[in-house]
Amino acid sequence: MAEKITPRNVDYSRWYTDVILQAKLADYSPVKGAMVIRPNGYAIWEMIQQNLNRMFKETGHENAYFPLLIPESFMHKEAEHVEGFSPECAVVTIGGGEKLEEPLYIRPTSETIIWSMYKKWIMSYRDLPILINQWANVLRWELRTRLFLRTSEFLWQEGHTAHATYDEAEEETKLILNIYKKFAEEFLAIPVIAGKKSDAEKFAGALHTYSIEAMMQDKKALQGGTFQNLGQNFAKAVDVKFQDKDGQLQYVWATSWGVSTRLIGALIMTHGDDNGVVIPPKVAQKQVVIVPIWRGEEEKKQVLAYADEVRTELRKEFNVILDDREQFKPGYKFAEWELQGIPLRLEIGPKDVAKDGMVLVRRDTLKKDFVAKAGILETVRQTLNLMQKEMLERARQFQQQNTHQVDDYVEFKKIIEEQGGFLNSHWCGDPDCEAKVKADTKATIRNIPFDQKAEKGKCIVCGKESEGRVIFAKAY
Amino acid sequence: MAEKITPRNVDYSRWYTDVILQAKLADYSPVKGAMVIRPNGYAIWEMIQQNLNRMFKETGHENAYFPLLIPESFMHKEAEHVEGFSPECAVVTIGGGEKLEEPLYIRPTSETIIWSMYKKWIMSYRDLPILINQWANVLRWELRTRLFLRTSEFLWQEGHTAHATYDEAEEETKLILNIYKKFAEEFLAIPVIAGKKSDAEKFAGALHTYSIEAMMQDKKALQGGTFQNLGQNFAKAVDVKFQDKDGQLQYVWATSWGVSTRLIGALIMTHGDDNGVVIPPKVAQKQVVIVPIWRGEEEKKQVLAYADEVRTELRKEFNVILDDREQFKPGYKFAEWELQGIPLRLEIGPKDVAKDGMVLVRRDTLKKDFVAKAGILETVRQTLNLMQKEMLERARQFQQQNTHQVDDYVEFKKIIEEQGGFLNSHWCGDPDCEAKVKADTKATIRNIPFDQKAEKGKCIVCGKESEGRVIFAKAY
Repeated sequence: MAEKITPRNVDYSRWYTDVILQAKLADYSPVKGAMVIRPNGYAIWEMIQQNLNRMFKETGHENAYFPLLIPESFMHKEAEHVEGFSPECAVVTIGGGEKLEEPLYIRPTSETIIWSMYKKWIMSYRDLPILINQWANVLRWELRTRLFLRTSEFLWQEGHTAHATYDEAEEETKLILNIYKKFAEEFLAIPVIAGKKSDAEKFAGALHTYSIEAMMQDKKALQGGTFQNLGQNFAKAVDVKFQDKDGQLQYVWATSWGVSTRLIGALIMTHGDDNGVVIPPKVAQKQVVIVPIWRGEEEKKQVLAYADEVRTELRKEFNVILDDREQFKPGYKFAEWELQGIPLRLEIGPKDVAKDGMVLVRRDTLKKDFVAKAGILETVRQTLNLMQKEMLERARQFQQQNTHQVDDYVEFKKIIEEQGGFLNSHWCGDPDCEAKVKADTKATIRNIPFDQKAEKGKCIVCGKESEGRVIFAKAY
Repeated sequence: MAEKITPRNVDYSRWYTDVILQAKLADYSPVKGAMVIRPNGYAIWEMIQQNLNRMFKETGHENAYFPLLIPESFMHKEAEHVEGFSPECAVVTIGGGEKLEEPLYIRPTSETIIWSMYKKWIMSYRDLPILINQWANVLRWELRTRLFLRTSEFLWQEGHTAHATYDEAEEETKLILNIYKKFAEEFLAIPVIAGKKSDAEKFAGALHTYSIEAMMQDKKALQGGTFQNLGQNFAKAVDVKFQDKDGQLQYVWATSWGVSTRLIGALIMTHGDDNGVVIPPKVAQKQVVIVPIWRGEEEKKQVLAYADEVRTELRKEFNVILDDREQFKPGYKFAEWELQGIPLRLEIGPKDVAKDGMVLVRRDTLKKDFVAKAGILETVRQTLNLMQKEMLERARQFQQQNTHQVDDYVEFKKIIEEQGGFLNSHWCGDPDCEAKVKADTKATIRNIPFDQKAEKGKCIVCGKESEGRVIFAKAY
């Protein structure tokens, strides 16, 4: 609270770090590349876990836990995979005081270890599908820390499913991408674009990679979740076959998919303002803070008794803080809870008690309304619902306003440089054109959106025929 | 399902492993010392997490997440701690393809890294107490795997609290030990004895260690949770001081406490029988399985429609499986769900439909009762409550029957050798006497129970004066 937050228009990147440190969402750790997720930040992660878990379980997925350490030889089983991940790994070479015969890699992702178990568990089509998810820490070596966005260790969920056919694996894609999109939009209030990754941007060892992409307030893209149709690559690498209904041996089809603590970074950058974080009500563990205002013992007694009644009523449904600390003034408390992003604040002074009401302040708009004490539970419920809806709407408008349909490469470069945002342009499918855009502008293909009308055109770079538009943007 | 479970009276240890593998609670992994927690086992862990989390939060604790990797120098800050843990560590020496200047230890426990952050966060008495808990994986090098009981990597929660006074830290002890005891007894149906550890058995770097101890069916003890009053040791090692109300600098008082996936092993060994696992209703994610019985299409249609009605009714409150698989006979299904420990089974055949009822089978007693369909929700609710209560009662009786108050060392050794169980005997406090018992019998002091009447006596080994009885037992 002591330090000032750098305003967004002065330095967006410093604003981001200031907000996280001062709202006590996370902190730098003494270990290079690693962060500490403080209680305020972890509370958001718990809400992400809770809600995604419910959605995963409703669609037949189960949670399990696989080992952290992966033998070096496993990492080398799938050629593209090892090339993609080995250089990023932390390697254990000593265990129990002795040098190990085979080094162990801290998982950068768990395909290889999980598929070594699936090999043991899958014999026939009756053992399929396997729909397993894991909540775990993973590690990819990083020295530059960017809180929540780029840290060596991070927390995520990784789904790993095994199927009898390609079609079934693609069905799983649709199911999971819908869950991710629904969760991002309905809970995090972050509008996302689901689509397919280009080959250059796909996961090491995957047949197809899909993603959901969001736009941050600085108009850069952030990938919110990925989904891999791994085809039969891992099954072949680890030799996992099953006997189909006709008694034939077939390789198993695989998918993997994940979201991580990055989502907390996306939430901050989508909704935060110069006063701090703004947490969408559905992922706020504490939804309401009551700040009583008084002078002298008489008023204090009266106001606190009244505030306590309000708290009791709201606790039927919400997690409520009554901030009755003596050592801080109301203004200090307002700023502190705004910084931390608690969705609603109720201010209660002697005048409010006299009028049998209170002042309600929404964190997103900071608009103040006088509301009656009678029916306060319903008032709070409705206000939180409205806030949730309007936060998504506002973010969606921002995304739309900053998405440009561009068909000329000179204009394309100008927009990327001067305005940023999403550029919806034609691409012929040639990796060279993709590479040229990246070299010229630092923008990459975020994805090829599912949800767009079919439209032929000419590649923004080479002018050759294109089957449809893709999204170019600079990205986190 | 294919293999047979070794009966408990033939080989308890093999029974334990058979049950875990066949009920698909866990599996051996290709990584030495590490296990895979399969969905059936992880579901129990999730129930443990959910319920403990609620209790922790109700008492003001918050969750956070600290780094997995700890710099070697941190491990060496607290002398006893390093002596206790360093030889058990897995050490990362390579990161991002390069040899590291300072090796990083995979956390065997997180005191050192967490206290390095507390140093940053604690300035004044206003910053205290800090009541933080972490759910995480930890690693202590092991080559011999014993599923859930002894694995190199395991999952746990570790609470780390910081206080202004010794008394406050001891208050925290009582609070947490009560939560652990309440959770073990009311949820896991495992009766436990809370008490203080002898110096020989305490945590590396602690002032006092406390534990809860349970008795398994083979009469050996299993420690279910530990609590450390770390005194000012860690604050001194890391130099964490705070300014008290009088403006004086003081070292902070610390506690740490944890339970792990070991609890799943305790649950299996307390309640399991020769048919498989028995999961107490309050920690079962799926509480009821309905097995429909039919011959021919006519019966099938009728029975399944009826079973579906029962499921719909029960789903108002419970997680219900309707096992309508065609390829398996009812007897096979009964055995499979018994193996997995689902608390209640409902068998529904044409005759049951005709009588408007069904057969209800409790997993713990395997007793069959015909119950009416009318009021089935209430019947199931009551039966599950009764089962939960009786499972605890049965385990408590077993523990009491196998606890011996012994005052003669010859008898002591005879009982340990021939019967096992808990031996409630006097001990003078001398580590040499404790060591002699261990050398003679392999039994150790489990703890010095809080809840016993004051009684002076003579040490079971040396005959010197003793202030009270302790519990000796062989332990897992």
